[in-house]
This record gives sequence, C-alpha cells and structure tokens, in this order.
Amino acid sequence: MSETPFDLALIGIGIGNPDHLTFEGAAAMRNADLIIIPRKGEDKADLADLRREICARVLDGAGTQIAEFDLPTRDADGDYLSGVSDWHDAIAAVWTETIASAAPRPKKVALLIWGDPSLYDSSLRIAARLDPQPSIRVIPGITALQALCAAHRIPFNDVGAPVLVTTGRRLRERGWPADADTVAVMLDGACAFQSLDPGGLTIWWGAYLGMDGEMLFSGPLSEVGPDIVATRAEAREERGWIMDIYLIRKLARAG
Amino acid sequence: MSETPFDLALIGIGIGNPDHLTFEGAAAMRNADLIIIPRKGEDKADLADLRREICARVLDGAGTQIAEFDLPTRDADGDYLSGVSDWHDAIAAVWTETIASAAPRPKKVALLIWGDPSLYDSSLRIAARLDPQPSIRVIPGITALQALCAAHRIPFNDVGAPVLVTTGRRLRERGWPADADTVAVMLDGACAFQSLDPGGLTIWWGAYLGMDGEMLFSGPLSEVGPDIVATRAEAREERGWIMDIYLIRKLARAG
Ligand SMILES: C[S@@+](CC[C@H](N)C(=O)[O-])C[C@H]1O[C@@H](n2cnc3c(N)ncnc32)[C@H](O)[C@@H]1O
Ligand SMILES: C[S@@+](CC[C@H](N)C(=O)[O-])C[C@H]1O[C@@H](n2cnc3c(N)ncnc32)[C@H](O)[C@@H]1O
Repeated sequence: MSETPFDLALIGIGIGNPDHLTFEGAAAMRNADLIIIPRKGEDKADLADLRREICARVLDGAGTQIAEFDLPTRDADGDYLSGVSDWHDAIAAVWTETIASAAPRPKKVALLIWGDPSLYDSSLRIAARLDPQPSIRVIPGITALQALCAAHRIPFNDVGAPVLVTTGRRLRERGWPADADTVAVMLDGACAFQSLDPGGLTIWWGAYLGMDGEMLFSGPLSEVGPDIVATRAEAREERGWIMDIYLIRKLARAG
Repeated sequence: MSETPFDLALIGIGIGNPDHLTFEGAAAMRNADLIIIPRKGEDKADLADLRREICARVLDGAGTQIAEFDLPTRDADGDYLSGVSDWHDAIAAVWTETIASAAPRPKKVALLIWGDPSLYDSSLRIAARLDPQPSIRVIPGITALQALCAAHRIPFNDVGAPVLVTTGRRLRERGWPADADTVAVMLDGACAFQSLDPGGLTIWWGAYLGMDGEMLFSGPLSEVGPDIVATRAEAREERGWIMDIYLIRKLARAG
C-alpha cells in the first residue's frame, strides 16, 4: 500500500453528449490533480474536443491540471493479439511518461473514458501494465448501447429474455447466435448485418449518438439495411469518421 | 401532435448511489412539472427513499411537483405473460390517475427509473399503454451491469468477445450458452449459477451495489459459489430484500 505511486481514476464520460456525465464522474474529475487526455488523429478531433469541453465545464475553479498525450499508432502487421498487446504496452509507457512529466508530481490522476470503462475499452488492461501498480477506481459512464436504446425509445431486451452483446467481426464470422433473439452490435466497420438472412429481423441503428449529426434508422432489416449501408458510407466520407451501433431483434413483438 | 396530452420523460437514475445521476437526468427532472414516484412495499423503503433524496437534491428551487402512487400488486396465478400484461395495464391506469389528480394539469411529467429505462424494466411497455399516447423521451442511467464491473474493476467483455446478458431463470433453464464465454446475470432470485458445472468458471458477484452495505465476492465459482449462496441468504434475511447481479467468465484470461 505504501508503495502505491498514485491513484488512477478511470472516468466514464458518456458517448458524445457532455450531459451524459454523472455527478460521480464530475466529482472525481474535480478531485484529480491531473487529467490526461489522448489527442486523436485529426479525423477524430470532435472526440478530443468533447473531452476538452467537459473539462472546461466541470473543472471551473478546481486546481486540476490537464496534460495531453499522443496515442501510439497500432502495428497492424502480424498476429492480431500480440499486436494489441504490444500496443497496450506502448500506451502504458506513454501514460507513465505523461504523468511523470507533470509538476508537482500528481497523487491523483484521472483518465476520461469514452462511454463506460468496462465496455469494449482497453483502459483497464492498459492500467494493469503500469509498474508500480496504481490504486485503480472505475466510475461508470453512459454507454453507446444505452444511448441507442434511449434514442429509439426501445427496451434492450424482450421481457425476461437475453441479449447477446457482440462485435461486427464476430457476427459476420459466427452468424446469428443460438442463445438470444436480440443481438447488440458494436465495433462494426463494415455493416456485418449484411451477412444475415434478413427475414423476420428488425434493426435499430444509430450513428454519432448524442452528438451533432446524430443519425437513426429503424425497421425491417430487409428494407432499411440497404439504406443504412448507403447512408453510413456517405456520412463517413463527409465527416471523415463514423461511430455506429445497432440492435437487431428476431420477430419484433409488441408489448 | 396537438392531441398529445403531456410529455413523459423516463429518467434513469442509476442503481442506488445518488451520484449516478447524469447532468441530463438532473436537467430533465428540473424541467418537469410533475414527477411521479412509486411507493414500494415497506421492505423496499430504501429504494423509495433514494428517489426522494434525489428529488430533494436536484429540485431545490425548481417548481416541480412530486406525487407518489402505490404500485398495484401482481397476480401471480395463471399464465406468466398474461399476468404481466394485466399488471402493466393496471400500472398504466394508476399513472394516468396520478397525473390527472395533479393541479395544475402538468404538461411535462417525469418518472424516475431504477438503473437504465431500457434494461429489464417495464416502463417503456407500460407507457405504450397510455391513451392518448404522450410524447416519450428516454434518458439513460447507470445500470447494475456497469456498477458491477466498476466495483470489481473488470472489463465486461474479453477483447473483441461477446457477452450474453441474461436472467437467472433463463440460465437455469438453458445452461451455459453456446455463443459466449461471458454471461452477465440479472433478476436471479435463487443463485442459478448453482446449476452450472463450476469447472473453469470465475464469478464476480455484487449485491446492494452503490448503496450502504454493498457486498462483493469474486473468484473461482467452485470456491466462492457456496459463500455467495450463504451470504446472500443471510443478507436477505437481515435486510428484508436483496438485489444482486453477477458476471461469470469461462477460463479467466490475463490481459
Ligand atoms: C471502442 S468501443 C467503446 C465503447 C464505449 N466504451 C461505450 O461504453 O459505449 C467503440 C464502439 O462504441 C460504439 N459507439 C461509441 N460511441 C458511439 C456514438 N456516439 N454513436 C454510435 N456508436 C458509438 C460504436 O459501436 C463503436 O464502434
Ligand atoms: C428489474 S431489473 C432493473 C435493472 C435496472 N433497470 C438497471 O438498469 O440495472 C432488477 C435487477 O437489476 C439488478 N440490480 C439492480 N440494482 C442493483 C443493485 N443496487 N445491486 C445489485 N444488483 C442490482 C439485479 O440483478 C436485479 O434483479
């Protein structure tokens, strides 16, 4: 315990709307000595801007420093998992450097995490590589799954029924799951729903949720699937990046 | 549109810690003319109290009325689904009555929802029964799933891997799913994990998350499973009620 170099708070900030922040998240931000923020490539400037906007709003008057760092780029060659593992090592090294450069040396460091720190996010795995290990605290934040359901005003699950939360890659490789009549799909760069037989499936899709230019589509997959593919390609082209998510249910039931 | 009798906001308030509330949720509360709050049976007084505490904190100075209503009790006889459907009709009727009794007649009504309105919650289905239909807005809130992962400081998913979100009843009936190495289990009144072969499974369990008396257990299911069963029974006996949730992963992997 006496070895602990600093406390590290991973703070979920929601997915684009600054009002997604919780009171717990805001208090943890104000309580930090230092907040470290990734600078993204220019294409995702919107995302870095959101973090700065939240800091400006919340930190007013608090003595919290902010330090930005450049995310190392990922080596796309070679084995996928060892590539990710090396990348996480590199990020941990950059965190350590950024924190060490702050003066006075911070006791309480915070990272602002897109959405919730537990959901398809690497921060906990990267933090586990820090040496010596800080004492870690996780503060939940609104996820893209929740923002999708809220925007469409739909339940995540049918009454008492399960939902498979999965990725585009996995949906494409494995097809429709045996165990659930609802799938929620994230991290899909290529509209994996096109690999499904659309009969009897309803989709609720959303992009740029909580942000300027939020887009929503819903309906029978056979009808709206092609519209989503076309709209997504256009939006991505125009804005330079896209983040989208969807939920698909078999046999949409009323009530 | 001119027929719309009122706006209805379903506001997720998180699962016990008043600081789970988001800025969006707080603004929607202050923006409402009327907030309706269920009085629970005496055993769940803690939960009704949380809603009152949040109102006291957030509404300070806002002109929002609060009205409490008694939840109709559910008919446990007969077919499960039609029982639920009748129960939802009855709740919709009580909402309508509670709102109609408010003077002056509210234009903006809000309901405070435990956790997130989309996750194993009936409010959207009940609201769909209101006649005439209000215009509905959903505001996401921190879920028990997120609070569980945050308290244990664990990722919800393995890298790029899916998670099945399910119920205790379903886990007991169907066993371990084919499509995921992680299951997240809610609404389990009877420790359904006891029906699994515990070999190679790790559990992270939490009860009263975000509240006084929060309890956490984690470890190999074979070792901690029996402790959870015993502790849960005691805590439930002592407090009169329990809410718990868990995540189980096959072959806990490092990194
Ligand atoms: C690396 S994951 C991070 C998820 C995040 N931790 C969360 O809690 O939502 C990124 C994926 O989340 C989804 N996502 C995140 N923000 C989004 C937004 N504003 N609109 C739509 N999808 C979003 C997309 O599926 C995207 O591929
Ligand atoms: C009817 S569901 C409502 C879920 C809620 N809408 C959410 O977003 O978490 C109730 C279930 O949520 C979980 N739950 C809710 N609050 C909890 C808490 N404070 N601690 C542990 N589990 C909780 C339990 O599994 C419980 O059976």
